[in-house]
Amino acid sequence: MSMDDLPPAGARPQIPGAIAMHAPPLFRTEMDIADCEVDGRLPADLSGAFYRVGPDAQYPLAPGNIPFDGEGHASMFRFKDGHVSYKSRYVRNQRYMAQAEAHRILFPMYRNPHLDDPSVKGLTRGTSNTHIITYDGKLLAFKEDSPPVAMNPLTLETIDPVYTFDGQLESKTFTAHPKIDSENGNLIAFGYEAKGFNTDDVNVFEYTPQGRKIWSAWIKVPYIGMIHDFAVTRRHVIFLVIPLAIDLEQMQRGGIHWSWDGSKPTYFGVMRRGGDGSDIRWFKGPERSATHVMGAFEDGEKIYVDMEMSAYNPFPFMPMRDGVRWDPVKGASHITRLSVDLSDKSLTSYSMEPLYPHVGALPRQDDRYHTVPYRIGFLPCPDPTPAAGKPANAGYARFDNQTRATQFFDAGPGTLLAEACFAPRSKNAPEGHGYLMGVATRQHENGRCDLIILDAEHLDAGPVATVRLPGRIAGQIHGWWTAEEQLPTG
Amino acid sequence: MSMDDLPPAGARPQIPGAIAMHAPPLFRTEMDIADCEVDGRLPADLSGAFYRVGPDAQYPLAPGNIPFDGEGHASMFRFKDGHVSYKSRYVRNQRYMAQAEAHRILFPMYRNPHLDDPSVKGLTRGTSNTHIITYDGKLLAFKEDSPPVAMNPLTLETIDPVYTFDGQLESKTFTAHPKIDSENGNLIAFGYEAKGFNTDDVNVFEYTPQGRKIWSAWIKVPYIGMIHDFAVTRRHVIFLVIPLAIDLEQMQRGGIHWSWDGSKPTYFGVMRRGGDGSDIRWFKGPERSATHVMGAFEDGEKIYVDMEMSAYNPFPFMPMRDGVRWDPVKGASHITRLSVDLSDKSLTSYSMEPLYPHVGALPRQDDRYHTVPYRIGFLPCPDPTPAAGKPANAGYARFDNQTRATQFFDAGPGTLLAEACFAPRSKNAPEGHGYLMGVATRQHENGRCDLIILDAEHLDAGPVATVRLPGRIAGQIHGWWTAEEQLPTG
Repeated sequence: MSMDDLPPAGARPQIPGAIAMHAPPLFRTEMDIADCEVDGRLPADLSGAFYRVGPDAQYPLAPGNIPFDGEGHASMFRFKDGHVSYKSRYVRNQRYMAQAEAHRILFPMYRNPHLDDPSVKGLTRGTSNTHIITYDGKLLAFKEDSPPVAMNPLTLETIDPVYTFDGQLESKTFTAHPKIDSENGNLIAFGYEAKGFNTDDVNVFEYTPQGRKIWSAWIKVPYIGMIHDFAVTRRHVIFLVIPLAIDLEQMQRGGIHWSWDGSKPTYFGVMRRGGDGSDIRWFKGPERSATHVMGAFEDGEKIYVDMEMSAYNPFPFMPMRDGVRWDPVKGASHITRLSVDLSDKSLTSYSMEPLYPHVGALPRQDDRYHTVPYRIGFLPCPDPTPAAGKPANAGYARFDNQTRATQFFDAGPGTLLAEACFAPRSKNAPEGHGYLMGVATRQHENGRCDLIILDAEHLDAGPVATVRLPGRIAGQIHGWWTAEEQLPTG
Repeated sequence: MSMDDLPPAGARPQIPGAIAMHAPPLFRTEMDIADCEVDGRLPADLSGAFYRVGPDAQYPLAPGNIPFDGEGHASMFRFKDGHVSYKSRYVRNQRYMAQAEAHRILFPMYRNPHLDDPSVKGLTRGTSNTHIITYDGKLLAFKEDSPPVAMNPLTLETIDPVYTFDGQLESKTFTAHPKIDSENGNLIAFGYEAKGFNTDDVNVFEYTPQGRKIWSAWIKVPYIGMIHDFAVTRRHVIFLVIPLAIDLEQMQRGGIHWSWDGSKPTYFGVMRRGGDGSDIRWFKGPERSATHVMGAFEDGEKIYVDMEMSAYNPFPFMPMRDGVRWDPVKGASHITRLSVDLSDKSLTSYSMEPLYPHVGALPRQDDRYHTVPYRIGFLPCPDPTPAAGKPANAGYARFDNQTRATQFFDAGPGTLLAEACFAPRSKNAPEGHGYLMGVATRQHENGRCDLIILDAEHLDAGPVATVRLPGRIAGQIHGWWTAEEQLPTG
């Protein structure tokens, strides 16, 4: 399949509805619902917690600010003994607490410290609104400009607003997309602008499951662009630098951290795990955007990273540096395989191959396969083959990268879908054997939400159970499944 | 004004919408919203807590059960320093906790113990869903078939699921409508079926503001009918027994506690405060219903009680014993003054005088005037004088009983209004000087709610502030205002 084979994307939304809804009007509702109503029957082998986090502006966003700057609202669907409860709490990070006390915004612009209220000097700016995982008995919420925040995985109470792994964390920042090593359970992560605002330093590091640092390396990036996600294989760490680049002038004028600079190339960087970073090789590519990794693997010296990739800036609210009007077709993304062959010492650019015709963002995999070869991926996306004359409903696609076979769950008309999350049927279940779950927002019911639970091997069979919420719930960027045996007791 | 002067009531709803909505689908959402959005400006002198409670079925009601049997969900609008937050929690009484553990209904029918699950023997059946007041540093939630439940007034945590005033409470039941003595702050209350299910005993009692019992008397009623509210004056206690009468056969068949027995008269009972109850005189009246007291007072030996009064059963879901189809016109109520002259020793019946043409239930007064002559009352009701050809929007009426002048706040189309609650501007403000507040449910916005705050002297001027909620909130039967100085600190 080549780029030219792709169908026109059309002006399909790249921002999942559940995020987009959390622009005004405000939501801000922390909730508890015991024993949620369920249509169908919860699978007996589904026991654990589905965590979600997303931006939910604590106060109305300042003019010119973007939805990504809403404060992090964490939520949990807790499955146990055939019942499910729902709980949500704001992440009570330093920013949230200071603003709550002041009853107003003190950090008015997305990642622009120039406009901060003087009272917040020394506090972390992080919203904790992007991703959430459990690690070492804690629930960690992430925003890539700050250290994680640690919460209680059962109560969602914030227990450490600046979690530094007992002081071991060298970077001032921490990606929202740490990886869990598929073989030893280690956590591998990085921070960019790691020495602080407007620094081109990246720190990459690895911790044991018990929180002991076993590796840290520092590298420099070709330019300061957003590095939202990364990839880790058995022996390598891979970054993609995209031209959503720091814009100091825009910030001086009161704007956000980034603008899209189409004049800049992309850089695909590969370095060995465990080294000092001096081996990093940067492979160049044309103007592209790619935010999230579906999966990655290596085959000898060949490195493969599957990402959602668009021709340029996928975010309508991120400014274009050249002032052109944002084009949703150019901003639409496809799952694309990026690759390099490290054995070719003269290679200076990376290759791109689109894998599927589906148009969508926020791909996921079976998270037990973060660092090893994987086969199955999932993507929220419009129906790629809607009936003639019908609008394409939102749904979840399942990809089998070995056969290139796809399945599609159609969520029905008027439904927006958040990112899906995979829960294995058991600890040792084969790849992709388990459940896929995600929150549906019913536009014709004033944003009422359902949690849809699908058999991950048979998406097209429809939900095995639907958790019916009585109204809207907190929105989501990313989510995480934690199985019962990894949760604290009590 | 006589009964004949009243305009036809029409089939107007007697059950405020915020209750009616809490039939299926289930809601059950406990919430926290910090710093609610406000349209307009919160009055600087409004500081304290507006408590509400209503039925919110923990599990779907059993077939044949009625909305009044939903479990009590308490909520609080906390006003402080020009900001307001919202919090709601279920009352964790014995019934709620047992059902939560069992993941199902254990008390399937409204006040019918015959159908209870054997496991709940010895637990109180009370739902705590009717009324809520602060008293002696506690928040007490009431259901008239059980003792109160004590909650923390700031956190809404349940602290005592069976509150018996340190064992002083003799009655097995406790009205949802205790009165606060306007002069000394004592709490006067009663229980009917006070020696248990199907007993014709009423216990009436008085406690100091610090929780010490200073009076208790036992009386018998002419028959066991619902005594939902009562009236207290400086020297008297007044009951109205209505023919929503206990129906043992219906209960044997699996039905609810009450049915309407139109063959029974009503009884208006008056007894002296502080006595042993042997002086009680029962004055007879024709078939009528009257559930709530707006205010009451005495003038020498003349006793006046202002109630919402209807020709018969106001509740469409309470069975009619004669099997006739329920008639909403006969079930519609008007504020009616009931009176007797105790100096007439031969008097055997009470008098009735309708005061206003408005059709509505759930009247309230300035609660500082529970036991003394009062002038001002409030009522949620449809516009009594809608423009020709227009539907009558819901609103709040203000009554001046001295001049019979009325005001009306029109809540606009598609809005249901809960009972209103009055908050005095200051501890010593004149009667009715302050704010009237109540929750509006917007039917055209999927039940989204607003808290409307009016200048209680100028209802027709429209809201001084509207607290805008992002969605639906817990429903309400009754509410209570507690001023800042009466709340615990912290």
